Amino acid sequence: MSIPSGAHTSIILRLELDKETASFGQIATAVSDTGGDIIAIDVSRSDKTTTVRDITVNVYDQKHTDLIVKAVGAVPGVKVIHVSDQTFLLHIGGKLETMPKTPIKNRDDLSRVYTPGVARVCMAIHEKPSRAHSLTIKRNTIAVVSDGSAVLGLGNIGPEAAMPVMEGKAVLFKQFAGVDAFPICLDTQDTEEIIAAVKAIAPSFGGINLEDISSPRCFEIERRLIEELDIPVFHDDQHGTAVVLLAGLLNAVKLVGKSLEQCKVVVCGIGAAGIACSKMLIAAGVRNIIGVDRAGAIVRGETYPNEAWQWYAEHTNPDCLSGTLSEVIRGADVFIGVSGPGVLKVQDIQRMAADPIVFAMANPTPEISPEEAEPYVRVMATGRSDYPNQINNVLCFPGIFRGVLDCRASRVTEEMKLAAAKAIAAVVSDEELSEYYIIPSVFNQSVVERVREAVIEAAYASGVARKTARPDSAAGAGKTVQITR
Amino acid sequence: MSIPSGAHTSIILRLELDKETASFGQIATAVSDTGGDIIAIDVSRSDKTTTVRDITVNVYDQKHTDLIVKAVGAVPGVKVIHVSDQTFLLHIGGKLETMPKTPIKNRDDLSRVYTPGVARVCMAIHEKPSRAHSLTIKRNTIAVVSDGSAVLGLGNIGPEAAMPVMEGKAVLFKQFAGVDAFPICLDTQDTEEIIAAVKAIAPSFGGINLEDISSPRCFEIERRLIEELDIPVFHDDQHGTAVVLLAGLLNAVKLVGKSLEQCKVVVCGIGAAGIACSKMLIAAGVRNIIGVDRAGAIVRGETYPNEAWQWYAEHTNPDCLSGTLSEVIRGADVFIGVSGPGVLKVQDIQRMAADPIVFAMANPTPEISPEEAEPYVRVMATGRSDYPNQINNVLCFPGIFRGVLDCRASRVTEEMKLAAAKAIAAVVSDEELSEYYIIPSVFNQSVVERVREAVIEAAYASGVARKTARPDSAAGAGKTVQITR
Repeated sequence: MSIPSGAHTSIILRLELDKETASFGQIATAVSDTGGDIIAIDVSRSDKTTTVRDITVNVYDQKHTDLIVKAVGAVPGVKVIHVSDQTFLLHIGGKLETMPKTPIKNRDDLSRVYTPGVARVCMAIHEKPSRAHSLTIKRNTIAVVSDGSAVLGLGNIGPEAAMPVMEGKAVLFKQFAGVDAFPICLDTQDTEEIIAAVKAIAPSFGGINLEDISSPRCFEIERRLIEELDIPVFHDDQHGTAVVLLAGLLNAVKLVGKSLEQCKVVVCGIGAAGIACSKMLIAAGVRNIIGVDRAGAIVRGETYPNEAWQWYAEHTNPDCLSGTLSEVIRGADVFIGVSGPGVLKVQDIQRMAADPIVFAMANPTPEISPEEAEPYVRVMATGRSDYPNQINNVLCFPGIFRGVLDCRASRVTEEMKLAAAKAIAAVVSDEELSEYYIIPSVFNQSVVERVREAVIEAAYASGVARKTARPDSAAGAGKTVQITR
Repeated sequence: MSIPSGAHTSIILRLELDKETASFGQIATAVSDTGGDIIAIDVSRSDKTTTVRDITVNVYDQKHTDLIVKAVGAVPGVKVIHVSDQTFLLHIGGKLETMPKTPIKNRDDLSRVYTPGVARVCMAIHEKPSRAHSLTIKRNTIAVVSDGSAVLGLGNIGPEAAMPVMEGKAVLFKQFAGVDAFPICLDTQDTEEIIAAVKAIAPSFGGINLEDISSPRCFEIERRLIEELDIPVFHDDQHGTAVVLLAGLLNAVKLVGKSLEQCKVVVCGIGAAGIACSKMLIAAGVRNIIGVDRAGAIVRGETYPNEAWQWYAEHTNPDCLSGTLSEVIRGADVFIGVSGPGVLKVQDIQRMAADPIVFAMANPTPEISPEEAEPYVRVMATGRSDYPNQINNVLCFPGIFRGVLDCRASRVTEEMKLAAAKAIAAVVSDEELSEYYIIPSVFNQSVVERVREAVIEAAYASGVARKTARPDSAAGAGKTVQITR
């Protein structure tokens, strides 16, 4: 998830102007001289001696804001009362609300929504608990759960500070797939306490999306919750990334005329996302994966400090290559980076096989800048929205959860993730496929429906779909009409 | 919360009709002969030999439904495929949805609601966690938490089956007070696990409404959560009932010209609600309360099996009366029943002082039926909507939480509950006050605003309001405009 510094935004300056001394012309000049662009002016209050005006200005970044505020504050008779920007204004009071589907207009409505009518619905569920999937919000509601330990690139900022991200994710779930999602940020970073809390709240939900939980705790938390709950649990940072990466890679190898089975793939950064990507690639048929972390390639026979790396050593690197990234990358067809800025050099790409495919997904700064890599790569993808081929989880999680909720899946199997990746890849037609278009845009409206259908198909094939009447596309399409609400 | 059996409702019969043999006239006759009233007919499907029709019929109750289904099923050529009623149809998919406040229309919106823009909001909260109260849904969102152990009069039906009630409560919060409420039903009935789970999820919420948790666990759970969290925790079954009871009683004693300080009050049923009502009455100035349970009056000096009764014995019954309800009720001014059906007899009322006030709040069947008590009481109140003077928690909880959220209170103090009770009572003017109107209707729109204002006033007086800029009525009114959405 990228945080580029150049994103433009707008701010609102609330100014108190002395009617005798202040001139609006001077203010406008101060703003434009510092490169700001006034796009709106509102008078908020006015009395005999002063007026209060809200001036909306397009700016580049925080530094630019500071500059403008200083310049405007220096105009005679002007006092800057307050500066708010669009992003903050958008977050006031949070980004979600809980809406009743049917209003209570009178005592009759009340008697159906609440007592006494509700008692019969309660007893129907008590008699057959699976009815909760149709008679409560469980049918269409998931929890977006985080402990705030690894939020975006910001690190361990805690549960309160993680809320805006989880709320944003919930907005995306609803907007893209009609899934009702509720953000739950946990006031604990203890593995067992997190597991206990999520299990405790599970009756309200039809699925759990884990988010921004640091490694290695995220592995145990996800594994245990999958085992101990009967609703799907999906750690998006791992599997969402892996699914979208695979989608892009499927199209990239198609474009260069190679097959995954024959490719040598170097994965750089063996954390939660790197391991999940590697597992996904293995499931998709890749046989020759070499994992590289700070200490070099992960090799069978070595002893590693954690269970995940031990597993990794035993399941990858068939030729037992050892050494640095620059050494093991020789002859590789694909580089997958989920590590840090600047890790990949031009010389490394030059050592790769013909038609190099480079996925440099480190955020906010990729393993190598697209400008630098351009002359040497055949296909390049990053995690950023300001370059072609953005590997963005938004392509995966709405459709995955739409699918599992619609067929009432008990879990997300490897087959379902593979199917989702193939569905995303297939949105790009053979005619459209090019070096600069291996993956659809996050705003491509057919992605969710394609992923949903593929996930449902695979869920029935995997035997985890619990809905006896199989949902058809039409029904699904009807449901996702909500998207544009 | 009452579950009368006579509530009328409508059902939808899905019928498959053989085109050759079935006659719609016969179906209509079968329905009307059994006392049903056809209000709509829809053709759902039709082929060469059969049609499927949905017939909506007004009915009285379940027995009546069975009768009609049987009669219609006996018509030649008719097969009853499915019977659904309005109440069930209303519950399909649950009663709530989570809505984004601002839609994401393009990449620019996405960059504000989600990455990269959201990162600045996260960091602002990380720097000063109290900002979560303004920059996240915490500002206006509470959890309605239950473990499903004491749901309505249905008993321990478990968390899934409790969901429809908690969803209904969330609907009421939004509808009556613009409070976003989310239902959390916990898959544990262990006191410590419940406390841990609620503490874990607290960062997402501005308040916790505990609901339908059985006694005595509810006391410990509420006490600990109040101590250990910095947001208000309110067990509605206890305090909501107590507040509304006091509101009604304030008006009842005014009507008969007595003062609470001089009244002898007998409370029957010393469970969670009975104890909370007694504490509220003591806080309001009542000096002479006698608590009665199955074994008779609770008397100082006796040893009781639980802490709550021990406390009760030490703080009530100043004259150390002992004996049965019929004995201790002699000369009482007020009877408060939170026990079970038929506990109070006409002879008991006859032993009371002049102008007896009887609050028979057992659900669904009161301690004495209003018809039976009528000739002997001056003022009577029940928990039921089909008699005058309904003591309904809906009068309290929306306004209480609207108030605590608006002033960012850290807890609900005794003073705030008292203020809420007085505010509810004051909605009934002196001119309106009568034996049949001591408490406003749940649909009286001024109740929430009056309760809100009183709670905010008392929160500042109690020193628990954390919002420095004190919310005024106008702002509040602006907020509650959402009610009618």
